[in-house]
Amino acid sequence: MKQRIAILGASGYTGAELLRFLLLHPHISIKSLTADSQAGKSMREVYPHLDFAGLPDLIPLSQLNYDEIDVAFCCLPHGTTQQVIAAIPKHVKVIDLSADFRLADTKTYKEWYGHEHSAPELQKEAVYGLTELHRDKIRTARLVANPGCYPTSAQLPLMPLLKNKLIETDNIIIDAKSGMTGAGRGAKQAMLFTEVNEGVDAYSIGAHRHAPEIEQGLTLAHGKPVIVNFTPHHMPMNRGILSTIYVKIAAGKTVADLSDCLSKTYAGEPFVKIAAKGVSPSTQMVRGTNFCLIGLWNDRLPGRAIIVSVIDNLVKGASGQAIQNMNLMCGFLETTALQHTAVFP
Amino acid sequence: MKQRIAILGASGYTGAELLRFLLLHPHISIKSLTADSQAGKSMREVYPHLDFAGLPDLIPLSQLNYDEIDVAFCCLPHGTTQQVIAAIPKHVKVIDLSADFRLADTKTYKEWYGHEHSAPELQKEAVYGLTELHRDKIRTARLVANPGCYPTSAQLPLMPLLKNKLIETDNIIIDAKSGMTGAGRGAKQAMLFTEVNEGVDAYSIGAHRHAPEIEQGLTLAHGKPVIVNFTPHHMPMNRGILSTIYVKIAAGKTVADLSDCLSKTYAGEPFVKIAAKGVSPSTQMVRGTNFCLIGLWNDRLPGRAIIVSVIDNLVKGASGQAIQNMNLMCGFLETTALQHTAVFP
Amino acid sequence: MKQRIAILGASGYTGAELLRFLLLHPHISIKSLTADSQAGKSMREVYPHLDFAGLPDLIPLSQLNYDEIDVAFCCLPHGTTQQVIAAIPKHVKVIDLSADFRLADTKTYKEWYGHEHSAPELQKEAVYGLTELHRDKIRTARLVANPGCYPTSAQLPLMPLLKNKLIETDNIIIDAKSGMTGAGRGAKQAMLFTEVNEGVDAYSIGAHRHAPEIEQGLTLAHGKPVIVNFTPHHMPMNRGILSTIYVKIAAGKTVADLSDCLSKTYAGEPFVKIAAKGVSPSTQMVRGTNFCLIGLWNDRLPGRAIIVSVIDNLVKGASGQAIQNMNLMCGFLETTALQHTAVFP
Amino acid sequence: MKQRIAILGASGYTGAELLRFLLLHPHISIKSLTADSQAGKSMREVYPHLDFAGLPDLIPLSQLNYDEIDVAFCCLPHGTTQQVIAAIPKHVKVIDLSADFRLADTKTYKEWYGHEHSAPELQKEAVYGLTELHRDKIRTARLVANPGCYPTSAQLPLMPLLKNKLIETDNIIIDAKSGMTGAGRGAKQAMLFTEVNEGVDAYSIGAHRHAPEIEQGLTLAHGKPVIVNFTPHHMPMNRGILSTIYVKIAAGKTVADLSDCLSKTYAGEPFVKIAAKGVSPSTQMVRGTNFCLIGLWNDRLPGRAIIVSVIDNLVKGASGQAIQNMNLMCGFLETTALQHTAVFP
Repeated sequence: MKQRIAILGASGYTGAELLRFLLLHPHISIKSLTADSQAGKSMREVYPHLDFAGLPDLIPLSQLNYDEIDVAFCCLPHGTTQQVIAAIPKHVKVIDLSADFRLADTKTYKEWYGHEHSAPELQKEAVYGLTELHRDKIRTARLVANPGCYPTSAQLPLMPLLKNKLIETDNIIIDAKSGMTGAGRGAKQAMLFTEVNEGVDAYSIGAHRHAPEIEQGLTLAHGKPVIVNFTPHHMPMNRGILSTIYVKIAAGKTVADLSDCLSKTYAGEPFVKIAAKGVSPSTQMVRGTNFCLIGLWNDRLPGRAIIVSVIDNLVKGASGQAIQNMNLMCGFLETTALQHTAVFP
Repeated sequence: MKQRIAILGASGYTGAELLRFLLLHPHISIKSLTADSQAGKSMREVYPHLDFAGLPDLIPLSQLNYDEIDVAFCCLPHGTTQQVIAAIPKHVKVIDLSADFRLADTKTYKEWYGHEHSAPELQKEAVYGLTELHRDKIRTARLVANPGCYPTSAQLPLMPLLKNKLIETDNIIIDAKSGMTGAGRGAKQAMLFTEVNEGVDAYSIGAHRHAPEIEQGLTLAHGKPVIVNFTPHHMPMNRGILSTIYVKIAAGKTVADLSDCLSKTYAGEPFVKIAAKGVSPSTQMVRGTNFCLIGLWNDRLPGRAIIVSVIDNLVKGASGQAIQNMNLMCGFLETTALQHTAVFP
Repeated sequence: MKQRIAILGASGYTGAELLRFLLLHPHISIKSLTADSQAGKSMREVYPHLDFAGLPDLIPLSQLNYDEIDVAFCCLPHGTTQQVIAAIPKHVKVIDLSADFRLADTKTYKEWYGHEHSAPELQKEAVYGLTELHRDKIRTARLVANPGCYPTSAQLPLMPLLKNKLIETDNIIIDAKSGMTGAGRGAKQAMLFTEVNEGVDAYSIGAHRHAPEIEQGLTLAHGKPVIVNFTPHHMPMNRGILSTIYVKIAAGKTVADLSDCLSKTYAGEPFVKIAAKGVSPSTQMVRGTNFCLIGLWNDRLPGRAIIVSVIDNLVKGASGQAIQNMNLMCGFLETTALQHTAVFP
Repeated sequence: MKQRIAILGASGYTGAELLRFLLLHPHISIKSLTADSQAGKSMREVYPHLDFAGLPDLIPLSQLNYDEIDVAFCCLPHGTTQQVIAAIPKHVKVIDLSADFRLADTKTYKEWYGHEHSAPELQKEAVYGLTELHRDKIRTARLVANPGCYPTSAQLPLMPLLKNKLIETDNIIIDAKSGMTGAGRGAKQAMLFTEVNEGVDAYSIGAHRHAPEIEQGLTLAHGKPVIVNFTPHHMPMNRGILSTIYVKIAAGKTVADLSDCLSKTYAGEPFVKIAAKGVSPSTQMVRGTNFCLIGLWNDRLPGRAIIVSVIDNLVKGASGQAIQNMNLMCGFLETTALQHTAVFP
């Protein structure tokens, strides 16, 4: 029997991107789509490219009947999601694409989000959904906190290297470049085509909320607290994150050791790949796909390495990884509906 | 048993786009990829985003063993294709993405391409592959001439209207806007990012080779010679064609009649759709898909209508329609491997 | 003595673009900048690229002291401008960049803007500011209605051709492509980078308010009512309008006659140029400049011609032409501060 | 009397950009333009946007009569420039935009460029043209080596900080993002619109020739050898470099000290500015201008700072700085013809 799916907050980009994949998924059916601000509208009105797909109209969250739902994807804004998920009956599997359950430590949550976490018990239950590195826990989870886009691109290369003591913890610098879908679909002057096109800038310098999420993963991998520099930049393009990561190699180790470690860690993984020598990962190589592609280089600075990691922020950085997690949680083949080749050019 | 596929000229954009879809096709296997200028290279070297897909290396055309091939997609340059296809054994089904077999009249071919057609007998055999309007012939064809990108976007709306005498034949004006993948992958100064970005221009004004291809289809539909204005433009984007078509409505008819005609013609078609009232078709709505989306409006000029037709030039305008035709020729479900939703944003 | 300038509505794109040129103008000083919604802010806060230019802070319109102003540029929204300009003392020269005084016939105004014109007397006084074709009237005007961007690109080629009876009035089709600055700086979802990038669409089909403005000019040139098709399109770029215009040549005339007419009309004009044979005008060729560049071609349809006209919508289509008009009204050399070469690439 | 100018290699982007500014310069006249591969063509054929500017046709370098030239801008490829400049008579002032004379140490030159420097005596004469920091020497120079684009963006913030011992020399990491005009106008597949658009990648990782140029400046400022990480990235836009620079603050110092140092160093400078608190420098803020805009932030990593520096690579990073240097060398006001405001949007 097919799993019946609800998407809460289906009118944003991650909602639409979930549908792009789920419409090709053989083992699910799209049962309900909610969007309070757009309730009553058809998907045609919100996303004309989804006209002809036979999708249900958008309903207010209050009208969602959880008795008919097996799996809920939650694409609601940060902060309001906690209450919504707290009210979901326990028979429903939940994959939350907001940041609400990503930080295991509710004190850290309060520090970065400015208010008490309203569902600390749920926070304890939530499993962090970085699939390749938490697969077993995800398989049996009821509530998965889907990772942030930047943290996915940074943790996949860094966690195995820290776990295996191949890099030092000081001076990890993550210079990240993101396409504009990361900023969401809300109407803001700064996100107008004319304000973004032909420009590059850094933002939230020294203060982006994905920093503690990255540090949580690196600390877990390393065993002791890790602090990082994380500096995100806007790029004039729709999709893709490229993280250029500058690290200090552990004494006696080489870039080849780092490369070997990642190759072994991700051998057999369907979605995480180490780039061939001489290939510089570009966001184009993963556009529209659930891949993470990683390359490594010697730095000119002695004893240091440069790591480049690319993902599509809407796929491996959000909706694709969410479906990958759903596949695990529901016992489906992990790659189901996610085996697209990159859309290039 | 799976159909064994060869792609001749696999290092260009249409070759890569064929692979994007074929890699998800359950009833075929990619047997051989040729590319004379890149022979000996792996796909990784030519298309890094296709690394990890398990594809064969590129070989020169001369090494292709047709005994192992059931279907050949021919993505070679215009002009040289005739000889190549003439040499393909008759057990191989051929879908030609070049312009070599599109013009049924070899005199017209000579007029526009500047030299005698070298395979006039094959030209007689070739079936024009505008799927929705030539489906029955395609089903039994051995050699299909896959339509040009612009002609696909123009003929799908215009042919039914002319056939049903709903529009006049004089003053059909087709103002077409195309993404830059239409210009191919060859290194030309005029196609550099810096020369194209932030600019729009018209090209081949009054003299583009897709004009006679469009006129051939319209003449066939109408029964008498039709001449059109066709003016293509470069757009600073990768994919998509939007054709804005200005027509004179037949006496006593209305835009509603035109709309009804197209709705009836394409009722039940999986890939050709009439836009809902109020939806202005954008190339984004079909990006990455095999769809053609058509909208119609009253003109301010009395008795005239405006038709907007959008496709992805690499999909319905090339590789997608080629696979749609292969599905028909091989007896597969016509939509196999083509049911993607648009990649938006 | 320098002319003292006020810009009313200085926080939008046309306001900023006026400043780009005026800051290099030797005969003026920027006295006051108003912006009700941003009042109290410095230009740095609204336009960081104008920091360091020594500009006054933004004030509410109500605080503007007209005693200190010689020339006012009015960049306010359509509809509200009439009242504002009616209240400006008569010693102030006014160049209005809104649409409020462009339509000489207040009935046509009401038809297209949905309400009575509130200053019909001022409308009679207003001079339409298409500089090259109304230069003498502009020189002595107190109130100039600066033309719309699309109407500028269409009228410059068409008015001389109609005046000289070189083209017919029926079936004039204007397919116009515009960069996104034409949509202004207001935060709208449809204008987000992610919604616009990699897409092309037509909008206001058969119903754009620039149609009557174009028709007013063509009717004036021709002597009898002219109706046109005008179909605007969004392009994924910041600046530039390219109008592809399809016309019927008058009996016995040729494209060479049309070309000669425009060459003669604009001989000696500093800003309107006829493209050399073989040059297809691109918006890049005029980016950032006050130029209009026009090319002409034979159509494949017998007896018809294709005209391509490009401008920068923010310059010749708005702020540049406004300064050109100011130069005339103030007795300065017409080209003062406007002699920039295109910013290419 | 006007200085008579020659541009050697006028058909590339830096040549065209020189003309954009020089055409507005009151004290010079454009005497000769050379371009061996395009010799005999008019500028219209090479750069249609420069039609109507009254420029001389392109001639081969061999036909250049230096008797008629006072100042030569040399925009020729790296490597071939040395011989050309060696043959220029000594009465001609030369500003070289290639890399040939930037590295004072000819051993370092050989190491990075793979061959012996052919004009070591001229190398000794050449003055490095980073205007703000070498103004006095430039004023009296005959041969100026105009800095590279990346080195300009990196040295302007870093040299004063190193000179004043406000930052440490270890772990200076320069993550630079550049628009595509930096790659020049040569036809290369990798630079096609379709290959670049919607993508970001790093290139020449650990091995870019601008690294030794940056290190030369930093070593000079600091007094002892400095090695840096320099990692350039391609951005899908035409113009602009944004360098995000990660540095370790000297013991006992703060970001405020760094900011004060740069504010004092560049107080009164017309083209180098420190961004106001809260303004994150974007490449848009300097597009088309000769400005360098610098911002500073605290890093999350204790004791470290983040510096963001933006320029237009074709202006302050090439042709603008070259004219700034010419102005100094010829005794003109340094800002002549360079006082443009940014072209935004």
